[in-house]
Amino acid sequence: MTSIRKAACIGGGVIGGAWAARFALAGIDVNMYDPHPEAARIVGEVLANAERAYGMLTMAPLPPRGRIVFCASLKEAVQGADWIQESVPERLELKRGVLTEIDAAASPDALIGSSTSGLMPTDLQRDMKHPERMFVAHPYNPVYLLPLAELVGGGKTSAETLKAAQEKLAPIGMKGVVIKREIEAFVGDRLLEAVWREGLWLIHDDICDTETLDDVIRYSFGMRWAQMGLFETYRIAGGEAGMRHFLAQFGPCLSWPWTKLTDVVDLDDALIDKIAAQSDAQSGARGIRELERIRDENLVGIMQALKAGDGGRGWGAGKILAGFEKHLWKTAPKKEARPGREPLDLLEIKVHPSWIDYNGHMTEFRYAQCFADASDSLLRLIGVDMDYVAAGNSYYTVETHTRLLDEARLGDLLRVSAQILPSSDGRKLQSFMSLTRADGTLLATCEHLMLHVSSAEGKAVPPGADVMGRLQPLIDAHGDLPPPEGAGRSVGQKR
Amino acid sequence: MTSIRKAACIGGGVIGGAWAARFALAGIDVNMYDPHPEAARIVGEVLANAERAYGMLTMAPLPPRGRIVFCASLKEAVQGADWIQESVPERLELKRGVLTEIDAAASPDALIGSSTSGLMPTDLQRDMKHPERMFVAHPYNPVYLLPLAELVGGGKTSAETLKAAQEKLAPIGMKGVVIKREIEAFVGDRLLEAVWREGLWLIHDDICDTETLDDVIRYSFGMRWAQMGLFETYRIAGGEAGMRHFLAQFGPCLSWPWTKLTDVVDLDDALIDKIAAQSDAQSGARGIRELERIRDENLVGIMQALKAGDGGRGWGAGKILAGFEKHLWKTAPKKEARPGREPLDLLEIKVHPSWIDYNGHMTEFRYAQCFADASDSLLRLIGVDMDYVAAGNSYYTVETHTRLLDEARLGDLLRVSAQILPSSDGRKLQSFMSLTRADGTLLATCEHLMLHVSSAEGKAVPPGADVMGRLQPLIDAHGDLPPPEGAGRSVGQKR
Repeated sequence: MTSIRKAACIGGGVIGGAWAARFALAGIDVNMYDPHPEAARIVGEVLANAERAYGMLTMAPLPPRGRIVFCASLKEAVQGADWIQESVPERLELKRGVLTEIDAAASPDALIGSSTSGLMPTDLQRDMKHPERMFVAHPYNPVYLLPLAELVGGGKTSAETLKAAQEKLAPIGMKGVVIKREIEAFVGDRLLEAVWREGLWLIHDDICDTETLDDVIRYSFGMRWAQMGLFETYRIAGGEAGMRHFLAQFGPCLSWPWTKLTDVVDLDDALIDKIAAQSDAQSGARGIRELERIRDENLVGIMQALKAGDGGRGWGAGKILAGFEKHLWKTAPKKEARPGREPLDLLEIKVHPSWIDYNGHMTEFRYAQCFADASDSLLRLIGVDMDYVAAGNSYYTVETHTRLLDEARLGDLLRVSAQILPSSDGRKLQSFMSLTRADGTLLATCEHLMLHVSSAEGKAVPPGADVMGRLQPLIDAHGDLPPPEGAGRSVGQKR
Repeated sequence: MTSIRKAACIGGGVIGGAWAARFALAGIDVNMYDPHPEAARIVGEVLANAERAYGMLTMAPLPPRGRIVFCASLKEAVQGADWIQESVPERLELKRGVLTEIDAAASPDALIGSSTSGLMPTDLQRDMKHPERMFVAHPYNPVYLLPLAELVGGGKTSAETLKAAQEKLAPIGMKGVVIKREIEAFVGDRLLEAVWREGLWLIHDDICDTETLDDVIRYSFGMRWAQMGLFETYRIAGGEAGMRHFLAQFGPCLSWPWTKLTDVVDLDDALIDKIAAQSDAQSGARGIRELERIRDENLVGIMQALKAGDGGRGWGAGKILAGFEKHLWKTAPKKEARPGREPLDLLEIKVHPSWIDYNGHMTEFRYAQCFADASDSLLRLIGVDMDYVAAGNSYYTVETHTRLLDEARLGDLLRVSAQILPSSDGRKLQSFMSLTRADGTLLATCEHLMLHVSSAEGKAVPPGADVMGRLQPLIDAHGDLPPPEGAGRSVGQKR
């Protein structure tokens, strides 16, 4: 990938500041010019947000942060820069003036991008001496996270410029998407503007309030669009018959009186052919079943991510999922621990796509997750539920010994069973767990020690009588079982 | 929560079948009526998709699946049902007829929902004897995953009906969002239709193709809308000055010639006051900084979820993130293992919001993740990189012993260091790792054993000379260090 060596940001508001943060976090030095007295503060705040986000975003090694230097003049700022990003307020005369000034002061082969969200690049580059290297690079807030830059060339922009811009955006984690023809507001803001106008009508006419409108979006098509766009989503809706079928089925809606705005394109055969062909080129390599599978996995992943949102309280659709799960736990029939002379079945789970590493195997720490979930299941069996924990007592894991014996793969059905070890006395709960595939292959074992802790006393204490009454029969029943092969071992100990 | 006791689905296509799957997976028996010869096949396929998705969606205990019974008549199907969902094709006369038939055959207090995506409930309930219990419950595909049902009452629908419907949807994981006034296409499809129409113009006019349009959506506002809607997102864009400032700044765009469709609402003072007040009611409890923080955490979580998409190859913005990370790894300066007489620093990481359990502590298996990531880091230090693995050799973790000594909390900066143990000979790589908080508190230790395996030979073999040349100095340098406290122990072993 071709990297930007040095960047200049002209205009340091929320957008310009976030460009600077993107560059700096990718290791690129940035010259900043903005005469606004608050510019340094705003850029600092955006950079702090960006650093916080990148700390969570990736485990990959970020390079040493590039320096952000505030310059006294535009001319000084663009010296030595091979990418100059203009992000001044959205007025044609102002932007054109600034861009012309950049053009005059910059090295002739530096790329010059404008953050405009709607002005035509042909109008912006009109007075430049080297307009062929000027283009629109329209980002989306928050610029340091969202990867899109719409790349739009004007009448004088060269094709090489757009290609070079795409190449230089990749190493900073951005995707330059080239828009074929220039048009005011390009593609993204056209779509946003259509929704915004329709949304204003809905509020104006008291159909709903802003919160209801937002909920409708984020509980439904918002999640679809986070991973597939409009056409790929509808292609799936058309089923095996594909895009053409969808258009035949839903095209007529266009003439229904559904919106305030009824200047509607004629969905004639030529347009249907064009869309069907483009959709085939875009998605035709995968069947509808495969697209459905990918869509559902993505939606599951998004909802699980949102369940962890707002400091673990859940956000949006993730909060709804959390509520659903709480209901499932509350209404699940209390399993009774049936003391028997065999290990207890604790967990059955399928290997999730996100658990797989690049080798196609379940990644190391997911074994620990299976055993941790199984030990939670053991606790529920002996009556340690949400109410018990809320009353101030709980078991804490203090020690584990895990042996990885064979590989789990995507979609494998895994089971975890446990033998309670005789060292358990209630205050201590020590078990030996086995993780097997549905075909019976033993994949891993875990010797697991928990202590029962009272948060009031701040130390390990015996559990309540009810919990002990469920646990003791298990300890007794398993007391006669032979010690499991592998228990009591230290790491690397010879058999 | 009030639960549905028994459901009936009239119409068993993709929508009706997915309703049936939602009900059945929440433990509710379903009577299904659809004379279409393919109905059983379609419902079966949708149910299979839904079961697969739920297997990944939640660890909570799903109740025994409800039975789905195909009935010979509509009348038979609705017997005993307290929720009847109509999902027949989108034609007013047909739907009205079916709903009137349902009304006549069902128990008078059963709730009757229609899946219509656009017809007015007043028109649908016209001929009913008990229209007060009829309403629109408009879901979104895939119905078994997306939680939204738009609830819309007609002129004769009672307020109690909508309240009861909301209560009964919660235990099946759905959110009933009540739309204040009925209107064709309600709220979601109005917004979708506006985008669809605008999208068709963009394709028609060759501004872009379908793939570009989809990419623009999913790399930008699609991810924003998966977690916050239109108004909350724009509230943040307005900064500390809030919604009113945003409207003042961006309101004028409405009169710009940005779209083909220019019948635009007048954004007068009354409408501005209304939106600002509604937005305050919706989001005013949180400051803009807090909303930014939540938004960024959600976006990070969504991108990480998408990075795991398509069987780990990455999807959409997640694929871009994967490419960015690959670039970071490739361009990171190769760290040299500097053999010294102290443990090696391997990892520095912040506790991510999604790592926290309901107690506010880092959850058990994330300790294992930190140690697994640190051992990856150790491997890179000795030259086991992507190329080495691609050539057919790698280290596999076979055994770990972990002690959890103290709690990590949200935002804690964690460090992992390692001491190579003298049992290491290259074929075996045994280390003792310590996880500490930035303040120096020891939170956990892990004794970790890896074997160097040749995939061609299918067994443990010594590593290549280059790797051994980097590892041996570490083994030698650490050979003189005192054995770490806690190494060589089995679970529960007395000190």
